[in-house]
Parts: sequence; structure tokens; C-alpha cells
Amino acid sequence: MARINDRYLDLAPSYLFPEIGRRVAAFAKAHPEARIIRLGIGDVTRPLVPAVVEAFREAVEEMGRAETFKGYGPEQGYAFLREAIAENDYRSRGARIDAEEIFISDGTKCDCANIQEIFASDSRIAVGDPVYPVYVDATVMGGRAGSLGSTGRYAHIIYMPCTAEKGFLPALPVERPDLIYLCFPNNPTGAVAPKEALRRWVEYARAQGAVILFDAAYESYISDPAIPRSIYEVEGARETAIEFRSFSKTAGFTGTRCAFTVVPRDLLVPDSRGKPVPLHGLWNRRQSTKFNGVSYPVQRAAAAVYTPKGKRQVRELIDRYMENARIIREGLGAAGFEVHGGVHAPYLWLKTRDGARSWEFFDRLLSEVNVVATPGSGFGPSGEGYMRLSAFGDRASIEEAVARIRRIFG
Amino acid sequence: MARINDRYLDLAPSYLFPEIGRRVAAFAKAHPEARIIRLGIGDVTRPLVPAVVEAFREAVEEMGRAETFKGYGPEQGYAFLREAIAENDYRSRGARIDAEEIFISDGTKCDCANIQEIFASDSRIAVGDPVYPVYVDATVMGGRAGSLGSTGRYAHIIYMPCTAEKGFLPALPVERPDLIYLCFPNNPTGAVAPKEALRRWVEYARAQGAVILFDAAYESYISDPAIPRSIYEVEGARETAIEFRSFSKTAGFTGTRCAFTVVPRDLLVPDSRGKPVPLHGLWNRRQSTKFNGVSYPVQRAAAAVYTPKGKRQVRELIDRYMENARIIREGLGAAGFEVHGGVHAPYLWLKTRDGARSWEFFDRLLSEVNVVATPGSGFGPSGEGYMRLSAFGDRASIEEAVARIRRIFG
Repeated sequence: MARINDRYLDLAPSYLFPEIGRRVAAFAKAHPEARIIRLGIGDVTRPLVPAVVEAFREAVEEMGRAETFKGYGPEQGYAFLREAIAENDYRSRGARIDAEEIFISDGTKCDCANIQEIFASDSRIAVGDPVYPVYVDATVMGGRAGSLGSTGRYAHIIYMPCTAEKGFLPALPVERPDLIYLCFPNNPTGAVAPKEALRRWVEYARAQGAVILFDAAYESYISDPAIPRSIYEVEGARETAIEFRSFSKTAGFTGTRCAFTVVPRDLLVPDSRGKPVPLHGLWNRRQSTKFNGVSYPVQRAAAAVYTPKGKRQVRELIDRYMENARIIREGLGAAGFEVHGGVHAPYLWLKTRDGARSWEFFDRLLSEVNVVATPGSGFGPSGEGYMRLSAFGDRASIEEAVARIRRIFG
Repeated sequence: MARINDRYLDLAPSYLFPEIGRRVAAFAKAHPEARIIRLGIGDVTRPLVPAVVEAFREAVEEMGRAETFKGYGPEQGYAFLREAIAENDYRSRGARIDAEEIFISDGTKCDCANIQEIFASDSRIAVGDPVYPVYVDATVMGGRAGSLGSTGRYAHIIYMPCTAEKGFLPALPVERPDLIYLCFPNNPTGAVAPKEALRRWVEYARAQGAVILFDAAYESYISDPAIPRSIYEVEGARETAIEFRSFSKTAGFTGTRCAFTVVPRDLLVPDSRGKPVPLHGLWNRRQSTKFNGVSYPVQRAAAAVYTPKGKRQVRELIDRYMENARIIREGLGAAGFEVHGGVHAPYLWLKTRDGARSWEFFDRLLSEVNVVATPGSGFGPSGEGYMRLSAFGDRASIEEAVARIRRIFG
């Protein structure tokens, strides 16, 4: 008789966004005249840039002609895209990554969850707190989390608190993890890791024989050239880290779907007998068995991000969002708020006022100024007392939201 | 210290297509003048139809304009596509499937592998022999296969031989499986299951509490209206079957990527305490955690398959491939071959001549008539003595290949 995977029953209900939706809907019903502004939105709002649209459209036309039609592509992705990534995202910054080490996929969310499949089922996993919930949920589904405690934490997951005192950087954990999720620029706090911090992590992981799962989905928002955009800018990372990147927030691909994962050939992990096995081959086997590659026109669209025109247009797109971030940061800062992030990341991490808890402050913003922000406590206990704001909204709404908040807190 | 998932080391090397490639390359090098024709190709060759290209292109343009841009879509897929599927593929044929029961994905390969995640880790899995290799490899990766024996079979997988005597339909297994992969029209044999056969499977699965994983990726090649295109045309299947379908072979989407999986709300499977849990909710949680939905333009392209123009054009595409199948079937039949399949499926299952083993016959076809076919033994022990041919090539090459084979076997 078939039985389900009981681990799914251990998943904490996905509470955050449904609860936000419920409270906003209830408020809107009671106050139909209110003009509600969403300042917590985690999705891009600007259209694809012209260079990307042009390449995308041309590839669609190719699919309609017999001479240029493409059937199954390579599961790992087309060489034209992998080469462009290796050159522009890595070699140009001094990071030694080859096209053969890059796996094109349809999303970082998929990859950073699915990557656990190639590791032992009893792997201990470390995550930041607050944390992007997918790392935790994938750990639970794979049976690596243990039981859910009353604090909302799982017994076998190692949580690394990220607090204001340490610039929201996680401290090296006391317990020894096998896999360590790091996300810089960070979702939700907007923190970035200076090179020295990443160097410490690489050294720690190498000493422990741990693997770093480095989520760099927001790297294009880094404006300081001294801050690494890739973990491979740190020496030794090729032997200890897998990196995840996405076109979602870089080039507005959240609805178009393209991302990639880097598994260096130097990254060896032992089997249960202690024999080192290259993870590159394992991930390749995983992807070629369970994945069929990304849509050809989408890969062409992504490659256009690396053309001179594409680079310029995407830069303008990011600058526009970062100008939004500046407006929020400076506006709320002038109103006496403690605001973190928003300099090298599209997310801002706002400390609530008067010691309010996240959900209390959510209700206050919603009822008093009709602004929706995301309660930080939804990302983990260390997020309590914070709100996540994002820079993805449209300019006028953001200016209006900031003005409204300043009117009551100014 | 991190360790790998040892189960990956149990995977049989993916031998079939690399070995074909090796032998063809060696022959071509030794005989540079030979005009080699591939008659075993498993990929479509005709371009996307005009109705699909038009919708695809329009959706790309939408992504380039602020007013019509789409960010993250619903993980389960857009309602416009799920509604079109429910109406055209199910309700119009009397199968009661709602749009909410349909999950849009980027491939049947992904879904029929990933679906195992929502079931217990010790599930016993039954597959046909010969079999599409992904079912087996996903079982191994998930730790449900046991050890690999010297016959190429895994100890815990239940193999169901599909032989000519029974029309290549699997017999009900003696051992009791929890999950049963069925694929009709079948890859590789091209066999189809009459309604009575599917009814027996549904009754068997319900009696055993097993779940049928029904791969219907080739359903659009069925031309006899009496043969079910969906398992949900059989009463009771809603309580026991998950169905996988794809636009890959229906509408030439192998490089465009769109598919879907149906998980009916009536399908309940117990947890380890015996409490029934709806699989719909589990799969929804799996997909919303580990998947971000299919590219919006691709979903628009897929929806165009259901417009009157799209239906007509796709019908012509399939008819064209099926005319290829007829040419192969009749041509080789007239040459004295025993040919199966190719009537309701794009695959033909050819018995070798003179009792040759599959690889012997492969070498003979390659060296004597420069035609490449796929050795049936590569799909499992019961495929020994057969070759898989496909109808996806271009007309002239297929006619030429058939003529060449007839010249030596006629």
C-alpha cells in the first residue's frame, strides 16, 4: 500500500504571505476607500529590457522555421549562454570558472532546494536566522530537519542568528554543519559580506569538510567593487562552494525563468567509505535525469543580458530600483528609523518603532498609513522587531508610501 | 563533514545513447563517404506551428511593456492554460478533471521523477520491462531501488515484462507494488492499452492501495477513439492515479518546455499512522517550494495549442509524423519484418532478423545500410532482440532508410 512521505507533515504551514494577504483583504474590505501601497513586494515590476525582448523574439521566430528549429537542448544549457556567463560573471572578475562548470536552470529556488539530493540523507544543515524559507522547507522535505520545536525551529537544523550587532552576518556555528546556506546580498536583511567575512567562511568550510551553498541571486545590486559578487572571488572556494545565481532580479526574469548553478570541478565530497567524489558529475547526473534544460528562446533572452546593449539596459534597470531603495532608506532614516540594507541589495531591513513586534507594526502601518510591509519575524525568530521592505515597486508609490510613514513618524 | 548521497553510485552508467554515439562515430570515421540516416531519433524535428509561434511572440512583446509585464506567476501555472487543458483534454472526453487539479510544469521527465518525493522512502516501485530509463534512475536516486544485480536489475524494483505474446502490455505483478509506472502509448514499444486493460489496472491499484503513475506523454498519437487517451476515462482512476502529459511530442515543445501533471483531489494516501492525506496538497507544497512556474510566454504558446487554428495545425503535425510511421511500418512489414507500434504512437518496435541480438542487429544496420536504430535491449532485458525506430525524422530520410533496409532484407 502506498504511503506518503511523512516529512511533509513536519513542514510548518507557509504562514507569512497568506497571513499578510488575509489581513490586507480584511482591512481593504472594512476601508474600501483606502489606497493601499505594497512596500514589501518581493517581485520585480519593470518590463524586460529591449535587448532581451529582441533576442527572445528572434529565438521564437527561429523555433517556427524548419531550418532553425531546436528540439531538446543540452540539459546543462547551451554553450552560448554558459560561455557568456563564464566570461562576464567570473573571468572578468578574476574568478576561475569554466563554462563546463555552469548549469543553466529555470530558477535558483529549484536549484538551492534540489541540490540537497546529491548529499547524504543525514547531512546537518546550517541556515541563517532570519532566512529565505526555501532552504528550511527543502531540508524538512528531505528528512534532514528533525522535529519542529515549539519555537518554530527544527531540532537538526543549525540556526545562525544574524543580528544588528554583527552587521547581520552569521557567526561561525558551534555545532558542525555539513552544508551551509549563505545568501549575500541577503534576503531578507539586505546585508552584504565583505571579502574578509567570506574568506573566514571558506576557511571554516574547508577545515570542517563542509560545503557552502552560496545564494548570490542579488549580486548585481552590489555597487562597491571591493565587495565580492561571487564566492569564487575568494581563494579556495572552488574546493568548497556551490554558487546559485539568477536572472530574476538582475534582469527582471521572475516571470521568464532563467538561472544557473556553478559546481566547480575541484569540489570533491567523500562517499560513505571516504572516497572523494566530484559533485560536478553527481549534479550533472541529477540534472540530466530529472531536468530537460531551459526553453531555448529563454536561454537566448538571457544571453542578451551580456551584450553591450543588454548590459547597459540592465544596469539602468538596477539603478532605477536602487534609486527607489535610496528614497526609502533616506526618507525613513530622516524620520528617525533604523534602516539596514538597501545599499547593495534591493531589500531594506527596518527596525520597528517603540519596540513594537513585527506583526504589531505591520498592523500599525496598514491601519494608519495603508502601507503593507513584510513582518521580519516571518523569516525567523531573529527577524522579530524588523520589517522587510523592497525597492521593486514603482517610483510614485514608493515616494507616496515614504511620505505617509514620515507624516506619522516624522 | 559533508558526504554524498551514496545512492548515486548505484546508478547504472547511462550506456545506451553514449554507446550508440561511439559506434556511429567510429563507423563514420572509417567510412567518411557513408550517408548515415538516424531512424531511432527520439526528438521532434518539425518547427512550432504558426498559431503557437504567434502567441509565443505576442507574449514576449507583453513582457517588454510595463502595462503588460508579468513577474512571478502562480507556481501551479496560469489559469488560462489550466482551464484550456481541463476543457479540451479532459471534460470534452468525459473525464472529470478540474483546472485546479492540473499543475503546469517544464517537463514530464522532471515530474515523473520528482513525484516520488511525496511518497515514503521505502515505497516499492513497479516498472515495465522494457522501460523509459528515467523511472528507474529516479527510483535509484531516491534510495528505493536496492542494489544493482548482475542482470542489470535492481533488487527492490518490481519489473513487469512486456512481451509480444501479451501485446507488450505488462501483466499484474506477483509482488505488491506501492507505486506503478504505466506509460501508454508506450515508449519504447509503441503499444497502447485498451480501456479494459486500464480498467484492470485501476481495479488492481485500488484493491492494493497502490498509486498508478500514468505517463501519457504520447496520447495525442492515438487515432482510435475507443482507446483511452487519459487514465481518467476509466472509472475510479481519480482515486488511484496521477497522470503526466507533455506538449513536447504533441506540439513539438521539446526545446520550448511545457508539460503538466494531474493530481485529482480524490486521491488520498495514508501517512505512516494510517491517516489519509490528499496528494494534491502535498504536490502543491512540493511545487510551490521547489518550483517557480513555467515561463509566461511559454504558457501562452502552450495555450495556443487549444485554439481552433492551433488544434488544426497540431493535428497536421501529428498526421505528418504518423504518415512517417506508416511508411516505416508498411515498408518493413513488406520486407518480412515483424513490426509493432507505430499506429497509435510515434515509436515502432522492430523484431530483429535471424534471431539477432539487438546490438548485433544495430551493427548490421549501421554497416550494411548506414541506418541507425536504437537497440531495444537498452530499455531492459525484455527488449533484447528488438530495435526502437521513431517517426520523427524527415520524410525523405525515412523513405530512403526504409528503401535501403528493403534492399538487403526484401
